[in-house]
Amino acid sequence: MTYGMDLLSNINKYIDHSVLKPFVTYKEIEKHCLFALEYKFASVCVNPFHTKLCYEILKNSEVKVCTVVGFPLGLTTKNIKIKEAVESVENGATELDIVWNISAFKSKDYTYVENELKEIIKHTPNVVHKIIVETAYLTQEEKIDALDIVIQSGAHYIKTSTGFAEKGADIEDVKLWKSLSKDRIKIKASGGIKDLNTVLAFINAGADRIGTSSTEKIMKEVDGNVL
Amino acid sequence: MTYGMDLLSNINKYIDHSVLKPFVTYKEIEKHCLFALEYKFASVCVNPFHTKLCYEILKNSEVKVCTVVGFPLGLTTKNIKIKEAVESVENGATELDIVWNISAFKSKDYTYVENELKEIIKHTPNVVHKIIVETAYLTQEEKIDALDIVIQSGAHYIKTSTGFAEKGADIEDVKLWKSLSKDRIKIKASGGIKDLNTVLAFINAGADRIGTSSTEKIMKEVDGNVL
Repeated sequence: MTYGMDLLSNINKYIDHSVLKPFVTYKEIEKHCLFALEYKFASVCVNPFHTKLCYEILKNSEVKVCTVVGFPLGLTTKNIKIKEAVESVENGATELDIVWNISAFKSKDYTYVENELKEIIKHTPNVVHKIIVETAYLTQEEKIDALDIVIQSGAHYIKTSTGFAEKGADIEDVKLWKSLSKDRIKIKASGGIKDLNTVLAFINAGADRIGTSSTEKIMKEVDGNVL
Repeated sequence: MTYGMDLLSNINKYIDHSVLKPFVTYKEIEKHCLFALEYKFASVCVNPFHTKLCYEILKNSEVKVCTVVGFPLGLTTKNIKIKEAVESVENGATELDIVWNISAFKSKDYTYVENELKEIIKHTPNVVHKIIVETAYLTQEEKIDALDIVIQSGAHYIKTSTGFAEKGADIEDVKLWKSLSKDRIKIKASGGIKDLNTVLAFINAGADRIGTSSTEKIMKEVDGNVL
């Protein structure tokens, strides 16, 4: 694949630098935030407990704090998801990556799934909402239903994966959503994206944002190409 | 290994039947609860969203509803963990399996870890508390510190694993805790326990409760031995 220097020079703007492992220390969170400041990523994506710490480091920059909600199983209650989302915004998050209720969806309780998302979004206006549907567990038909529900919810992005399921983002799913969505929603690809070529392939397929924890390796590859 | 018929006949009382996968449907939850009623397990262990449904099926039985809190990463905030615990008890849980704050522990912020547990326990009196410390991420020394902190918190059980880390329960960890705890706390082994011999080995090592989703296979092995 060939890509213009423009994309390579701006690839940082596509990246949510993900730091979601449970064993990450406070010092490591700080290091990741400084790294994100250096490269001006779109955001640092963290668990709720780390939101405040990230905000303190990132608050005077363009790098957003992105906090996950109901992560990674999506099976807390609606009430708790709302409280977690609201608290995360109070703590400095301006982007929320919300795991939808996978059990309700697989039970064909689409009304519950959509209403939960709508309520969370209603309670956290003025922030960016990305809905994680965990494609690893969905049939082809369900991936299409998922897109419809997430568009209906009013979210800004549909996001493929948590990175904690058996399988991460699939390029074909991004292409499918891109062709069906007619730009009514953006797409975030995440899970198993570990090198520059994969990042570029997902962007080429239609992804507007990339979630990855292999950011250091990817940016080294970018620097090698740009220099 | 040889074991008395007594243990085999009562092995159901050791088992928390775990149904924690995010894609489980409402109907499957019901089936799992009926299965637990048939075999009279200690509990059915579920995500918060499924607590009410389980309670409706199990309420007139000896089988407890066990709900996980902050599961599986332990990195929601203290405030949200308390709310999740309280709500789960309101919804019918009488046992709570709480993931402690792994990041705070790895950052040596033991005060935060212990206070969080104490506050959750204070807000949910009269239920059984099991604290998941996720041994997969702990050094030998940290496993000993973990035991001390969980005993200090006032919890009833220390629990090895979520089942979502790279590694589950280790028999040596259970032996270590059994020898050090002097019966000040009970032990729940979980994660990767998939057959009767493993269940028996963990009980023999000192486990008081076993968390497993391979319950059907295990009970078939028991039935084969007892008949």
